[in-house]
Amino acid sequence: MQELSNAILRDGIGLGTDVVKVDSFLNHRIDTGLLTRMGEAVREAFADEQVDCVLTVEASGIALALTTAQAFGNVPVIFAKKSGHINVGSDVYSARVYSFTHQRENLITVSRRHLQKGMRVLIVDDFLANGEAMRGLTDILRQAECVTVGAAVAIEKGFQPGGQKLREEGLKVVALATVDAIRDGQIILREA
Amino acid sequence: MQELSNAILRDGIGLGTDVVKVDSFLNHRIDTGLLTRMGEAVREAFADEQVDCVLTVEASGIALALTTAQAFGNVPVIFAKKSGHINVGSDVYSARVYSFTHQRENLITVSRRHLQKGMRVLIVDDFLANGEAMRGLTDILRQAECVTVGAAVAIEKGFQPGGQKLREEGLKVVALATVDAIRDGQIILREA
Repeated sequence: MQELSNAILRDGIGLGTDVVKVDSFLNHRIDTGLLTRMGEAVREAFADEQVDCVLTVEASGIALALTTAQAFGNVPVIFAKKSGHINVGSDVYSARVYSFTHQRENLITVSRRHLQKGMRVLIVDDFLANGEAMRGLTDILRQAECVTVGAAVAIEKGFQPGGQKLREEGLKVVALATVDAIRDGQIILREA
Repeated sequence: MQELSNAILRDGIGLGTDVVKVDSFLNHRIDTGLLTRMGEAVREAFADEQVDCVLTVEASGIALALTTAQAFGNVPVIFAKKSGHINVGSDVYSARVYSFTHQRENLITVSRRHLQKGMRVLIVDDFLANGEAMRGLTDILRQAECVTVGAAVAIEKGFQPGGQKLREEGLKVVALATVDAIRDGQIILREA
């Protein structure tokens, strides 16, 4: 998506060889118009699919999940909650997710009553890197016997293995922008 | 707002004397259409005001903040981050916020570069009870020398003191619904 690529190249900050900071428009300050149009772009990429619900994980995924849900005609959003607790009760589906950023394992949970068997769910998140969060979310959908329609992310780190692995397993994964490398502080985007 | 009141009475769960669970449409599963119309209702309540930016705190405030920002013509959203850390660096504004729900103190932070002096900011959150989060956000805006236009919340717990105190201090506080009491599991709403 050209507008997102432009924002990344203009306002994104590359750190080291693998950190992309997009605090100024995606995950601390939100460019509301851009996020609204990104939701429409996700809708276009999955235009042929019936989507009953959008699933994401708090907190940075919520904005794109909501604008995507608006673009699909106001379907509901569910955001998985992050918990440090290991004891979460039997009324939730849960999955363990290792965060490379924070170097710790979180549990993510979704109330059982919000996911019904057979529901067609699109997963949305801000970043896809090693694919840990995405794998936790697909695992929860498998437990709930939902249909995972696919996954859409704002930014994929193409130099990390998450996206490729998920695609090899047959999941349709759409990234609105793909970072191929970070070199000397410069973010190198894949050509659309 | 009648549609929100209806949703609270239909799907909200009252626990004990002070817990209102609205997981099914506001802060775990999101009713996207309702949230979009709630943003428009916040816009109407502050129709005479110039709003440059909407400020909230992760994670449950993000959805209403985003739809409010859309209703104001796609102004940006900033969501304060919660941190357990006490050492947060000098590039952020911070405030301590005590959570009665989790019985612990969090630090909330906003990058200095996202708040400019004189910016007119509307604070949005999902709940207002003791007003701790709201007070932390107004404190950050004071540090940044921004103008706090007012505060809008989805649900105010009218039997807890946060809203009244903030109004006595001169802040315009708008609640789309006010819970007056919880009795025998029943949520009693204030008449509009």
